[in-house]
Amino acid sequence: MTRKWLIKDGTFAVPDRENPVIRGYMLLEGSMITYIGEERPEGVEGAETFDGKGLLFMPGLVNTHGHAAMSLLRGYGDDMVLQTWLQEKMWPMEAKFTGEDVYWGTALSVLEMLKGGTTTFLDMYDHMDQVATVVEQSGIRAVLTRGVIGLCPPEVQKHKLDEAMVFARNWHGKADGRITTMMSPHSPYTCPPDYIERIVQAAHDLDLPLHTHMSETRAEVEQNVADYGVRPAQHLLNLGLFSRPALLAHAVHLTDEEIGILAAHQVAVSHNPGSNLKLASGVARVPELLKAGVTVSLGTDGAASNNNLDMFEEIRLAALIHKGVSGDPTAIPAREALRMGTEYGAKSLFLQDTGKLSAGMKADFIAVNTEQAHFLPRTDYISHAVYSAGPKDVEHVWVNGKQVVKHGACLTLDEEKVRFEAQAAFEGLLGR
Amino acid sequence: MTRKWLIKDGTFAVPDRENPVIRGYMLLEGSMITYIGEERPEGVEGAETFDGKGLLFMPGLVNTHGHAAMSLLRGYGDDMVLQTWLQEKMWPMEAKFTGEDVYWGTALSVLEMLKGGTTTFLDMYDHMDQVATVVEQSGIRAVLTRGVIGLCPPEVQKHKLDEAMVFARNWHGKADGRITTMMSPHSPYTCPPDYIERIVQAAHDLDLPLHTHMSETRAEVEQNVADYGVRPAQHLLNLGLFSRPALLAHAVHLTDEEIGILAAHQVAVSHNPGSNLKLASGVARVPELLKAGVTVSLGTDGAASNNNLDMFEEIRLAALIHKGVSGDPTAIPAREALRMGTEYGAKSLFLQDTGKLSAGMKADFIAVNTEQAHFLPRTDYISHAVYSAGPKDVEHVWVNGKQVVKHGACLTLDEEKVRFEAQAAFEGLLGR
Repeated sequence: MTRKWLIKDGTFAVPDRENPVIRGYMLLEGSMITYIGEERPEGVEGAETFDGKGLLFMPGLVNTHGHAAMSLLRGYGDDMVLQTWLQEKMWPMEAKFTGEDVYWGTALSVLEMLKGGTTTFLDMYDHMDQVATVVEQSGIRAVLTRGVIGLCPPEVQKHKLDEAMVFARNWHGKADGRITTMMSPHSPYTCPPDYIERIVQAAHDLDLPLHTHMSETRAEVEQNVADYGVRPAQHLLNLGLFSRPALLAHAVHLTDEEIGILAAHQVAVSHNPGSNLKLASGVARVPELLKAGVTVSLGTDGAASNNNLDMFEEIRLAALIHKGVSGDPTAIPAREALRMGTEYGAKSLFLQDTGKLSAGMKADFIAVNTEQAHFLPRTDYISHAVYSAGPKDVEHVWVNGKQVVKHGACLTLDEEKVRFEAQAAFEGLLGR
Repeated sequence: MTRKWLIKDGTFAVPDRENPVIRGYMLLEGSMITYIGEERPEGVEGAETFDGKGLLFMPGLVNTHGHAAMSLLRGYGDDMVLQTWLQEKMWPMEAKFTGEDVYWGTALSVLEMLKGGTTTFLDMYDHMDQVATVVEQSGIRAVLTRGVIGLCPPEVQKHKLDEAMVFARNWHGKADGRITTMMSPHSPYTCPPDYIERIVQAAHDLDLPLHTHMSETRAEVEQNVADYGVRPAQHLLNLGLFSRPALLAHAVHLTDEEIGILAAHQVAVSHNPGSNLKLASGVARVPELLKAGVTVSLGTDGAASNNNLDMFEEIRLAALIHKGVSGDPTAIPAREALRMGTEYGAKSLFLQDTGKLSAGMKADFIAVNTEQAHFLPRTDYISHAVYSAGPKDVEHVWVNGKQVVKHGACLTLDEEKVRFEAQAAFEGLLGR
């Protein structure tokens, strides 16, 4: 018999609705939410009950761009010019990453994300079997993709693409459906056009969406124009990338025409405000993207350029920086920022059944402890969630109907072991 | 006999030094730090010892601009145009504030600040005896000033100024020296020139520094030029305000010439990045100010325009936004951002003996729990403190040598009562 579970006396954030806060009940059956509303639902005999008093229940946060294993390089190089940082710090270390390093780096990130209220994340990296294994074990939901860089001989290109396809085929739908996959050329500046076309074809063959970095820096846009005569959005359009469901990371430097291309082809954007600020890439044109009807979600990027995986911070940055830069205090209201971090995140990842607290959705949700000074007075819980909450306010986390964090402790990963092994992995990288 | 207290096996953040992290010992005697270094100090027989393992000790954070009682209006109005927000939301409610409201609003803020690692704050508000009482009871350090608005008849102006002077004289040096005072015309646009001159004279008479809002919005700068023919920095210079030690809040819209005026007169600036972004005021020219030699510190402003009192967030915003906006990833390095939130904060408040972990300083410091995923690997603790830490990572807090937060719980205020009374005060305001 499916387990039933009733939350009573809860406060629920439903930013997708006109009235974005419900006080009442939520019913779970197995992995699903089957009811949410002010009235006690029918047919709950035998359901376990959970007292929701003092808790704000929110959809789990959705992190739509990152490289989880890079948390092994958190703080290893900061406040540097991008190319120096990449060439002197990141790339030499990443070249040494083994599957085991990726496992512990990913576990470190998943631990931070789960405890901080993230229930779904996208990961683009290498050694993806290890990443998928962490996802399977930890109970988190993930969209996984082996990012491929094509600046290499044809046989290496082919090997990488084959590897990406095997991974995508093998893991799609696994871990009780918590894992889905994508195909990912790393970026227009690291993949020759014909290679991108072959990856697009592979995505067609596998019926999977595509993910890539695009227009993170002004320099790469200029390079694209110099090399191909067009800006990156037109270039990717020409290569057929937008003929598939697609998600672009960053998309900082866009013209009106490019925004038009993304809107016309329903291309989603993962806005990474923390990383874009830290690497001095600039401020993406998010209000204009949203106005044009583009789905904009939020990502942390890797911890080496953020330097945390706190989605509350990305939500708050999205709400704050576009006001400050545009001069319009209504630019991204709190409710819209929260939707970017939840509902629009799920939409960006082409997941139909998460990102909202609503009957028929997967039970991916979090409970925030509101019995704290910074949640008072009880004026507007959406505002408090966006402008005042932080990752350590998260008391409980459920993914796919299963509780994975309880009173701030992760139930699925051995926290002490993960911390120990991640530190050991970093020291191992330094030593070899 | 003065109590001695030795922290061993600690990691200490000393961003004022060339090598910004010390692993070793810190000795406290009474309210003072008397030793910090790698070697165990001499003469510590009879000292109590404290195991610093797994903790990062940092100078207490210094919040140099705010209106603590305004936390009673957190979330009461967001994402609105400034004038609408002030006229329809803030001012009608603030007009109803009683001394008791100010007491509980301030207590709510002090609770949030202490638990989040802030050991010193500046407060500019009304009913300041109530604010001082909270400071006395809570054990926090504060610089307090009755902000005066001069858009009123001469007798009311005089009454306010007298009140500000009596408060400043009565409380300066009180609460074991934890309270100092300033004089504060609210701003050039809310105080006629002759009133500002009288306040400056009062500050001379009392030998106190001055604090005021300046150039928060573009509109007020334009108004100043229209009314007085000069921009605000020149206007305040003309009125003698910079003949005293002075601290300006916001200072978002500055010309090169104004930056020169501030530097020449050693005027300090409280940069409030969260509030400036949320109210869409703009991004202050902090890299240029620092380059010119101006002391720039950090403030949260009131919780109604932030919406929290998290100084870790202000430090991180200061490190991030100036990189993103300038395009220079070295704009405000982590160490400089941390100094802005600690050492430069103390300097901005004209406090000689706090803001650093160093022999001869007051023992105002915090201990952050680094046994957590987001503090790994152990690469660079200054980077972690700035880019990854949050208020709830604070495990212990000491002010003036006395522990005021232990394992995240406030030892000096009754948390549950403060939360209850603050909520009741807000409901009372709504009801009358």
